[in-house]
Amino acid sequence: MPKQRDGKGPRLERAAGNGMLNRRVFLEGAFVAAAAGAAGGSVTPARAEPLAVPRWMKEPGTALSAYGQPSGFEGKVARSIPPPPNPATVGIGTARTPLQLLDGMITPNGLHFDRSHSGTPDINPDAHRLLIHGLVKRPLLFTLEALARYPMESRIAFIECAGNSGALNSAQAQPGNVQAIHGLLSCAEWTGVRLATLLEEAGVEAGAQWVVAEGADAAAMSRSVPLAKCMDDALVCLYQNGERVRPSNGYPVRLLLPGFEGNMNVKWLRRLKLTTSPAMTKDETSKYTILLKDEKAWQFVFPMEVKSVITRPSPGLPLKGPDFYEISGLAWSGNGRIRQVDVSADGGRTWAPAALQEPILSKAPARFRMAWQWNGGPAVLQSRATDDTGMVQPSRAQFVADRGLRGVYHYNAIASWRVDEKGEASNVYA
Amino acid sequence: MPKQRDGKGPRLERAAGNGMLNRRVFLEGAFVAAAAGAAGGSVTPARAEPLAVPRWMKEPGTALSAYGQPSGFEGKVARSIPPPPNPATVGIGTARTPLQLLDGMITPNGLHFDRSHSGTPDINPDAHRLLIHGLVKRPLLFTLEALARYPMESRIAFIECAGNSGALNSAQAQPGNVQAIHGLLSCAEWTGVRLATLLEEAGVEAGAQWVVAEGADAAAMSRSVPLAKCMDDALVCLYQNGERVRPSNGYPVRLLLPGFEGNMNVKWLRRLKLTTSPAMTKDETSKYTILLKDEKAWQFVFPMEVKSVITRPSPGLPLKGPDFYEISGLAWSGNGRIRQVDVSADGGRTWAPAALQEPILSKAPARFRMAWQWNGGPAVLQSRATDDTGMVQPSRAQFVADRGLRGVYHYNAIASWRVDEKGEASNVYA
Repeated sequence: MPKQRDGKGPRLERAAGNGMLNRRVFLEGAFVAAAAGAAGGSVTPARAEPLAVPRWMKEPGTALSAYGQPSGFEGKVARSIPPPPNPATVGIGTARTPLQLLDGMITPNGLHFDRSHSGTPDINPDAHRLLIHGLVKRPLLFTLEALARYPMESRIAFIECAGNSGALNSAQAQPGNVQAIHGLLSCAEWTGVRLATLLEEAGVEAGAQWVVAEGADAAAMSRSVPLAKCMDDALVCLYQNGERVRPSNGYPVRLLLPGFEGNMNVKWLRRLKLTTSPAMTKDETSKYTILLKDEKAWQFVFPMEVKSVITRPSPGLPLKGPDFYEISGLAWSGNGRIRQVDVSADGGRTWAPAALQEPILSKAPARFRMAWQWNGGPAVLQSRATDDTGMVQPSRAQFVADRGLRGVYHYNAIASWRVDEKGEASNVYA
Repeated sequence: MPKQRDGKGPRLERAAGNGMLNRRVFLEGAFVAAAAGAAGGSVTPARAEPLAVPRWMKEPGTALSAYGQPSGFEGKVARSIPPPPNPATVGIGTARTPLQLLDGMITPNGLHFDRSHSGTPDINPDAHRLLIHGLVKRPLLFTLEALARYPMESRIAFIECAGNSGALNSAQAQPGNVQAIHGLLSCAEWTGVRLATLLEEAGVEAGAQWVVAEGADAAAMSRSVPLAKCMDDALVCLYQNGERVRPSNGYPVRLLLPGFEGNMNVKWLRRLKLTTSPAMTKDETSKYTILLKDEKAWQFVFPMEVKSVITRPSPGLPLKGPDFYEISGLAWSGNGRIRQVDVSADGGRTWAPAALQEPILSKAPARFRMAWQWNGGPAVLQSRATDDTGMVQPSRAQFVADRGLRGVYHYNAIASWRVDEKGEASNVYA
């Protein structure tokens, strides 16, 4: 419980049950009252004592470098790679983003998640080609140099694997942390040529309705994309956070379909074929379809639905005693902008709106922050996102009632972290 | 000169002299007419031929990795490091961002510029402390864990070294490329605690007007910052583009003073002392002051003035014959948002407004783009930025008339690339 320094207690306005504080606590001047509670804790500022001069102030530092790397002390901030079922297939599977150790909305390129179906090809950009053919007036073959001549556009966008959070399609709550359960979500500033520009260059024939996109990996990973999406906001990307796209994210060319499931954002893009109907590739038939409880399946479900996850507190980041904490997380929607995120500390009985970090961009993650006074008792933390189409993240009960638990893909129900009396968080179904 | 495919010539609306096209050419549908000119060139799309199956589609790719790196084919995309005057001082100097090879507004962390005065210290974060003392009610000593407990805020912001473009403070035009002349500018999404929050926690005493910030490098690099700036938008940053701040950018704690000259954004921040007056440190007396033509000097010039640079075309990126080109660059202001960027291809005789990439953020770089039809003759490319305070980037003649050429710091005059008949660009004073 916070000490109310200077008698400023009223600034600590309660917003919902179990210690949720009004977000105005984040505004200038209102925070100190809350932090006054923290000041008694073990991890909070101490009254100053003489400042020691550390070793690294007594010797010259290291040389300037051509390409920087993270501190050696941050080795734990790495993608996690679940072991493949077959130990020979080390390039097949996922490398997951450690969202619980990051902040802001951008994912640094080295930590952007990677879902690969046959490993990362080591593509020589001078030998790479992009072919646009099928129902077009002029089939065209692009070198990278030719692509780079077109006008570029930049967009900060999330990519989420359709299978992200899929572990929660199970009867039992999961033991993993944020990274293991929700780490197939990342965000970058992508820059490339509008696909519409290239398609106009080729000349779309009447009757074309779909575009089959194929990657230059050994799986020739292929997906069918509605032509309407290609003419809307699709980008043929050459740059990721300013530099050329990373190999594990599609170097030298990646298709970005803002908001659509990750698998369709074809990496190592080599071919776009305009067709009248979808190609029924492996990855849109045997995979990336949603099995429903009546044994039917949804196919061609493209935009990732509105969703959010609390990244901190979360499993593996235990609270250090009853005190003031910031609850922080990400919210996103493949259909537009995040309008609101509500947070609960009592398993969804009461909710309060979180603060959202500007700029809030369409089809990009929004960082949300909530002030919480933990009293040391049990708590169940939840976040519930609403996007600007009015879609609200469903409760788990609602999600399961609608779809059952066999779907694997597009799981977007409200997720819960139970905080126990020791301050440890774990996934529960609440 | 472009072929006017399908008789759609009128869409290629001229906007200024020497081939500058109206920015509406970037809008959907309007580009193809311009590109039709490009289609005849050597680097433009070819009519399709059978697509070869490359080697990397015939073998499994490489394994998933914990922390990704750029493609080996992108080795030239690196920071450049001018040789130090004394070969023993390999940590002193600059590592410059290759802006001419990047796109978008974000700089990837490995390429963010680095200006260091005594090398990069290898700081153990567990041993690092931040002290706030001087004219405060409660001196406070923060561990990183304590800092990380406070509410965070994120901001996409540029940092520009006060000496950026300083080579142009010379009578002769400079032989370097964008990176050599203008590469001390970068941008990241920074996340940290508002300094105002920490100062309120410590309690500012009456009479305090300045805050002396000191780094934990061997130079103990120190600058005096007006208290008003510290209470406004200053951040004590722990994260850079999502991950912990890179060592060469201040790991584990960097002060961000949005818009202020780079040197004041103290890296490896260890001490903030509140005082009545500036400390007159080495870096605000013998350096980082602006020598004027009358032998007087400006001291304490903090915000970086409105400025822009064309990153492409630029030296080292020759044009491949008369054709359509995108002119692309960055504009920024330490005083607010970029309102407009005008571009000229005739050395400033005529101008046309460039397209600006959304979102346009205060004290962040704005990417601008302009459509240009190069006729193969000589051209002088210039960009001129205006910010939302109404400040306009001065011509070089105006700048020199006002300040002379001895200032070294805060050079923000309009820069010029001359394009010769071979398509090669070089700096000129125009």
